[in-house]
Amino acid sequence: MQKAAIGVDLGGTNLRFGLVREDEKIISRRRTGTMATEGVEIVLERLTSGIQTLAMRAESMGLEIAGIGIGVPGIISARDGMVRLSPNLPGWKDIPLRARLEESFPYPVYVENDANAYALGEYWFGAGKGAKSMVCITLGTGVGGGIILDGDIWRGADGMAGEVGHITVNPDGPLCPCGNRGCLERYSSATAVMEMAVSAASGSGKTAIKSLLRNGMLTPEAIANAAKKGDRAAARIYSEAGKYLGIAIAGLIDLLNMECVVIGGGMSGAWELFIGPLKEEVKARAFRIPAQRCRIARGKLKDDAGILGAAGLALKKNP
Amino acid sequence: MQKAAIGVDLGGTNLRFGLVREDEKIISRRRTGTMATEGVEIVLERLTSGIQTLAMRAESMGLEIAGIGIGVPGIISARDGMVRLSPNLPGWKDIPLRARLEESFPYPVYVENDANAYALGEYWFGAGKGAKSMVCITLGTGVGGGIILDGDIWRGADGMAGEVGHITVNPDGPLCPCGNRGCLERYSSATAVMEMAVSAASGSGKTAIKSLLRNGMLTPEAIANAAKKGDRAAARIYSEAGKYLGIAIAGLIDLLNMECVVIGGGMSGAWELFIGPLKEEVKARAFRIPAQRCRIARGKLKDDAGILGAAGLALKKNP
Repeated sequence: MQKAAIGVDLGGTNLRFGLVREDEKIISRRRTGTMATEGVEIVLERLTSGIQTLAMRAESMGLEIAGIGIGVPGIISARDGMVRLSPNLPGWKDIPLRARLEESFPYPVYVENDANAYALGEYWFGAGKGAKSMVCITLGTGVGGGIILDGDIWRGADGMAGEVGHITVNPDGPLCPCGNRGCLERYSSATAVMEMAVSAASGSGKTAIKSLLRNGMLTPEAIANAAKKGDRAAARIYSEAGKYLGIAIAGLIDLLNMECVVIGGGMSGAWELFIGPLKEEVKARAFRIPAQRCRIARGKLKDDAGILGAAGLALKKNP
Repeated sequence: MQKAAIGVDLGGTNLRFGLVREDEKIISRRRTGTMATEGVEIVLERLTSGIQTLAMRAESMGLEIAGIGIGVPGIISARDGMVRLSPNLPGWKDIPLRARLEESFPYPVYVENDANAYALGEYWFGAGKGAKSMVCITLGTGVGGGIILDGDIWRGADGMAGEVGHITVNPDGPLCPCGNRGCLERYSSATAVMEMAVSAASGSGKTAIKSLLRNGMLTPEAIANAAKKGDRAAARIYSEAGKYLGIAIAGLIDLLNMECVVIGGGMSGAWELFIGPLKEEVKARAFRIPAQRCRIARGKLKDDAGILGAAGLALKKNP
């Protein structure tokens, strides 16, 4: 009997489900709004109902369900399947998510931090395949991270390891909402790109960014497109994002000597705009041997990384 | 029969041996110059002879020898006991140290990078005792490091992980011999303290550093003593060293969420001069939960850490 697992990406905005076959294919999907403000119990019902639908679909296809994996933003205790605290999900404090779902389903349930699920997705099924150690960096609204060492997520003492986005890359840099100054996230996130663009638009130079801002069309993608068409101010923004990403990655390489860095998240679409300056910094700053060892790869799975990683927790633990 | 192991610290300058009983006591020591310029074979003979002496002493005491552990600076392949390259030991390139010593002795031989041996010493027998994850930072001529995760050294793909000293803490900072700019080592090593002192001596302010320099008595210890006696320029140097150490440690905490940081090496003697500014940076920069988790401790074993860690490799693998 062929196996499958149900992977869930429980985000602050969207709740996404995938039925993942052991050949790594997502053969059925479901998506709904999380509507987290309606409260924990309603979200749990929505979660249960989505899983139920895919479980029935699996049954009708003659697939054996190996388990359910769920990626959740915030502080997760993976060992006991608890959501400790999720700033993006109001009310989610010390919620025994695994226990709650195991009341409804006869399958093992795995709960994982969403950035870790994303990293595991790329590691098992995407750009990190074949590596034994990997750091995954996601460039989105913020900069997230997941560290995989010897095939396992490194979670740290409180399940909070992997916060690559809040490494200091410039001690006197701009203030970050986290309280620190000069975090990587202040240079290499979509938010940082937008901030740099607004600041560039107030300058005296000629740039397409000005009209984008005036016409309410300023997005990271629009800035990237302007850069690709030769706008130098726009290009400089992505080059800056790449430079600081390179500074952080050089430090990670000297520290962890890992085989691979995977860069995913929405902003990785602007890959060719930042990868050059990124690699220049790595070359200039990291030790030669570990820098040559470390493959720097663009994420392959995009929005599916989280679902695949979560499902993988069930598929890999039950081979 | 009580067990013991022979721990060796093979440094660029000194070759130090200790007979370590399983109750963690060094019961016999030997020390000689490494005189590495005389060539690999001579150093190997000196090494063999030192081990021989302690092995005979162990026998005469009725101790069973569990094995031999050796800490070596440079790139080590711990798995096969090879010294890949040691910039401080001329000629040491692809030397099968374990195999060579196992020709002379009937005991298992463990070869480890010296910073890792130091970290293991503090972890098993010193300030890191009881922690499951730890980063060890040694402040000496340079800044070294060793990372212990779940009780094991994290070596990385090429055995080169743990280079805490070469993390960038200030992207436009001073050039480092490693080729990078603004490495931690440029702020928090004995070398950096001396450089900052020489630079302070050329200023117009009143400071004891000037007469220390003039009288050929400028050492990190003398600068620390001046600072303890109230010299503000001298105090500022150690405060700067602590600040950048704190910036690096804050990043490590967000990244690894480890239980403990141990700071050893010669400069840790100036602990009270840098620990305040260090902790301020950690508090201002790292996430609260992992920062509160992480104990920042002064190394306990000093020069013995390397010998004890190396011996521990044999004692712990053969309980």
